Amino acid sequence: MEVMKGIVQRYQHKRISLVEAGVTRHRSIFNGLKALAEDQPNSKLCKPEVVIIHDAVRPFVEEDVLLKVAIAAKEHGAAGAIRPLVSTVISPSADGCLDHSLDRASHRASEMPQAFLFDVIYEAYQQCSDYDLEFGTECLQLALKYCHTKAKLVEGSPDLWKVTYKRDLYAAESIIKERISQQICILMDAKEDEEHVGRCLEEMLKKELNHVKVTSGALCHAGRDLQQIILEQCYNFVCVNVMTSDFEETRKLLNALEESNLSILYPVVVISVHFLDYKLVPFGQKMEHLMQIKEFAKEVKKRNILLCGLLVYYPQDEQKLQESLRQGATIIATLIKERSFGLVGQLLVA
Amino acid sequence: MEVMKGIVQRYQHKRISLVEAGVTRHRSIFNGLKALAEDQPNSKLCKPEVVIIHDAVRPFVEEDVLLKVAIAAKEHGAAGAIRPLVSTVISPSADGCLDHSLDRASHRASEMPQAFLFDVIYEAYQQCSDYDLEFGTECLQLALKYCHTKAKLVEGSPDLWKVTYKRDLYAAESIIKERISQQICILMDAKEDEEHVGRCLEEMLKKELNHVKVTSGALCHAGRDLQQIILEQCYNFVCVNVMTSDFEETRKLLNALEESNLSILYPVVVISVHFLDYKLVPFGQKMEHLMQIKEFAKEVKKRNILLCGLLVYYPQDEQKLQESLRQGATIIATLIKERSFGLVGQLLVA
Repeated sequence: MEVMKGIVQRYQHKRISLVEAGVTRHRSIFNGLKALAEDQPNSKLCKPEVVIIHDAVRPFVEEDVLLKVAIAAKEHGAAGAIRPLVSTVISPSADGCLDHSLDRASHRASEMPQAFLFDVIYEAYQQCSDYDLEFGTECLQLALKYCHTKAKLVEGSPDLWKVTYKRDLYAAESIIKERISQQICILMDAKEDEEHVGRCLEEMLKKELNHVKVTSGALCHAGRDLQQIILEQCYNFVCVNVMTSDFEETRKLLNALEESNLSILYPVVVISVHFLDYKLVPFGQKMEHLMQIKEFAKEVKKRNILLCGLLVYYPQDEQKLQESLRQGATIIATLIKERSFGLVGQLLVA
Repeated sequence: MEVMKGIVQRYQHKRISLVEAGVTRHRSIFNGLKALAEDQPNSKLCKPEVVIIHDAVRPFVEEDVLLKVAIAAKEHGAAGAIRPLVSTVISPSADGCLDHSLDRASHRASEMPQAFLFDVIYEAYQQCSDYDLEFGTECLQLALKYCHTKAKLVEGSPDLWKVTYKRDLYAAESIIKERISQQICILMDAKEDEEHVGRCLEEMLKKELNHVKVTSGALCHAGRDLQQIILEQCYNFVCVNVMTSDFEETRKLLNALEESNLSILYPVVVISVHFLDYKLVPFGQKMEHLMQIKEFAKEVKKRNILLCGLLVYYPQDEQKLQESLRQGATIIATLIKERSFGLVGQLLVA
């Protein structure tokens, strides 16, 4: 309970009421329903017409299916998401041998979310036996057995799967990483028309990450836009420094990010891009100067911001420049995709 | 067929015979069985006593369960791996509503591998109907229906799951990456007793990756050991250069790896570690020198070897040195875990 309270507080959820869990699934759900019922003492919540029941182990539920089951429940009294069976289901005999197998096409896996008219499911839980509460697993079955309500079945998406095994945690991590890598914001340190090389990098990134939305703007007059981008939950920022050789612009961005609380849920990737013209500054000197990034990175890492530097070789030869930018785009794409804490503060070279 | 032939050739499999697939699962299996049967024309294979049937979409099958189903099949005529149900299974009515739900505890998911006495399953396939061949999904059911053979059910591990959705590919990738990151070989460029700093790094790595087997040796007299390590399928090498400032030792290692064909199946990570004493060589100069690694990396990447450099700051102060080494170990752990092509040739700094 304390852990859950901590989570609600930490992520600043406003519309959550917590209820003590029971020792089984059905007892926990029953406790939740009681908190919504009118006939219970100390009830502070209003009784809803429709209640949706969901498992926390299915974190990728879409609004769409919530809407569908709620509407179907209003009409049918009960509704639940289903999926095709991935494996054939069999019934074993007592001696551990095959008794019979079920026809896969005429069965479905019952998933969550499920929705009910509140009065239907509450009555079902009030009437059901201790055996049901101890060993049952299926709310739709309770509504059928005790209220004669035949649930409407709604096709769900594969995303409704239950995070059960270690492999599911791997899958969940990859899905989250993919989702928060769908948008990249590129910030230039000067007016747009001067930004030939920044624009080229943007084009390369669009090519490298062809499903990704790449937006760009100049940081100096992007204050308002930046707020908008942060509000849209963009978790990836590329700060292109052409005119200046220091971290002034990157710092401004980091400040804006820190103020926004964006990184509270997921780590935000920030890549500070610099260019090297051998003729102007020796490579070693430039590297040494840019290694300051380690210190900034250490600081912002505490706030879940992953800062890396990228030094792009900037030759006169147009073809070589394109090659450098292509490499730079690959590195940016990798840093965003991996979102790895271990490489924070590194200065990569393209 | 050509694709499969290509795979068999590329990965140098010696004991595989390919059979043309059918349009359904059962027809494909039947084709496979025919290739083993004595009564078929042009059969070059010997009829086995027991045959194991498996799905390619379950790539993480362990030898253990193969053995178990084969032994059980010898005794019972048929055997198959099962798993507990993750979701409740229901039967829908014709109008898309819940008809009834099945008791989760008395049903199981039927998985693969399955094993059969060859004569049992071959007869079952010969006798079964066109309807079975078109719409059936369960071999155990065929053995039951046509040969009255009740399959023995064997508990399988969660690793038997079917790679079905995109999330399963993510999970599979993570599992493979984890498996090939379980062993790291550290190679020192000098005799063991001189290697204080190399030893310290080794200790740090053991701390950072506490489930990982870390072995070490001097490359100069590790020729034979190295062959052994490669044979054990170690996919991670850390080449510690204390005495020399160039890539001589790393190159020797890369040559040995290229000769070994180790990287044919999975990418091999090689990290070339160097140390920087500010008093002896300026940082920029050292960096510039080590940037050569980009060229080597580009070359060996073609052969699925991922080479990165790591420059560790080597101060006099013992505590600061420990901190550098700790950072170095974190970076090494990250590079091995991510196994990312995008960062090949980079020189990271600890």
